[in-house]
Amino acid sequence: MTVLSPTPRSTLTRKKDRAATDRERLYEVLDEGLICHLGLVLDGSPVVLPTGYGRDGDTLYFHGSTGSGNVRAAAVGIDVCVSITLLDGLVYARSLNNHSMNYRSAVVHGRARAVTGEEKVHGLRAVTEHLTPGSWDHARAVNAKELASVAVLALDLTEASVKIRAGEPVDDPEDMDSHQIWAGVVPVRTTFGEPVPAGYTPAGAPVPPHVRSRRR
Amino acid sequence: MTVLSPTPRSTLTRKKDRAATDRERLYEVLDEGLICHLGLVLDGSPVVLPTGYGRDGDTLYFHGSTGSGNVRAAAVGIDVCVSITLLDGLVYARSLNNHSMNYRSAVVHGRARAVTGEEKVHGLRAVTEHLTPGSWDHARAVNAKELASVAVLALDLTEASVKIRAGEPVDDPEDMDSHQIWAGVVPVRTTFGEPVPAGYTPAGAPVPPHVRSRRR
Repeated sequence: MTVLSPTPRSTLTRKKDRAATDRERLYEVLDEGLICHLGLVLDGSPVVLPTGYGRDGDTLYFHGSTGSGNVRAAAVGIDVCVSITLLDGLVYARSLNNHSMNYRSAVVHGRARAVTGEEKVHGLRAVTEHLTPGSWDHARAVNAKELASVAVLALDLTEASVKIRAGEPVDDPEDMDSHQIWAGVVPVRTTFGEPVPAGYTPAGAPVPPHVRSRRR
Repeated sequence: MTVLSPTPRSTLTRKKDRAATDRERLYEVLDEGLICHLGLVLDGSPVVLPTGYGRDGDTLYFHGSTGSGNVRAAAVGIDVCVSITLLDGLVYARSLNNHSMNYRSAVVHGRARAVTGEEKVHGLRAVTEHLTPGSWDHARAVNAKELASVAVLALDLTEASVKIRAGEPVDDPEDMDSHQIWAGVVPVRTTFGEPVPAGYTPAGAPVPPHVRSRRR
């Protein structure tokens, strides 16, 4: 197992039992997540924005409009923090204090770099195929003008941590006889519904396999 | 309608058509969301962490351990940014460039304040009832020692923006005849599964109404 998190800011200081240290768990969270929250500092203040992403090996890719101030700020190599969270359950304990959530959370620190040329196209493909697998080959390709209007950023997965809580509630010994209080977990899942064709799709046109198979 | 976002950093600079300006839409996003991503600046670097929250009127409440460095940092009144995102759909367009997501996203900027006394209990209740409604009255109350170990933060909803994308894909005129390329939306939903009792719950104990009714 490759150990994650060699630096102080990516080393968990609390609930260390919830830290996962192997890289495979990091990949799982990143690959199952759909969106991330990207944090950066603008004019001294934190900004946190939801955005799509894609992973290729140990690199995360993002894209955004070249007209976005946040994207321009991130592209010059300032520190960013990317958080991807999968909520798996609501944890009801017998005491309010032990109520919790089941989740898998990845946090990545680093400096993003703007990529160009072949890596830019590669990064765009990673972002597209993460959210809508199969679209890269199915849809109309990006033309030169569109490519110029988008910025693609890369962030290496060198400084990352994964935190996981799973399973049933943990209650204090003093509450173990309080059987009239319910304890357990309500599972939370992200699911995909039936594809809804655009109004300009011809009536009766089949939903292609790469969309039809997108089940969760 | 109360207009949101009077300050430059909470005024959308791009995709302004996606900005919702009434307070009810802000409340909807905050009330439907389950977790938020809280951003702050520590040692000059951005930190983004997932956490629970609760809303009461125009105040968001958060809680965390007094042993957490992030919580301690936020409690002294530094700038924070809180982002709550509901992913509603994956948008497949005929061109890759018009692929998108349907979402409702709220971003709140401000300085959190640590609350004490009655407001601390009130804030804890808001956080608990947001994630696990009904638990405040059902579960064993917080005792003095537990209350002392938790910090409760309040953030006013004065500087907030809401961004919404909904509906079908938008394609370029040049792609409107490319009927062999599928365009449409795959809806994304957050659903709750059947409650799973803890192993220490007596066999056959009924799931109480406040848990059983938690459907989505």
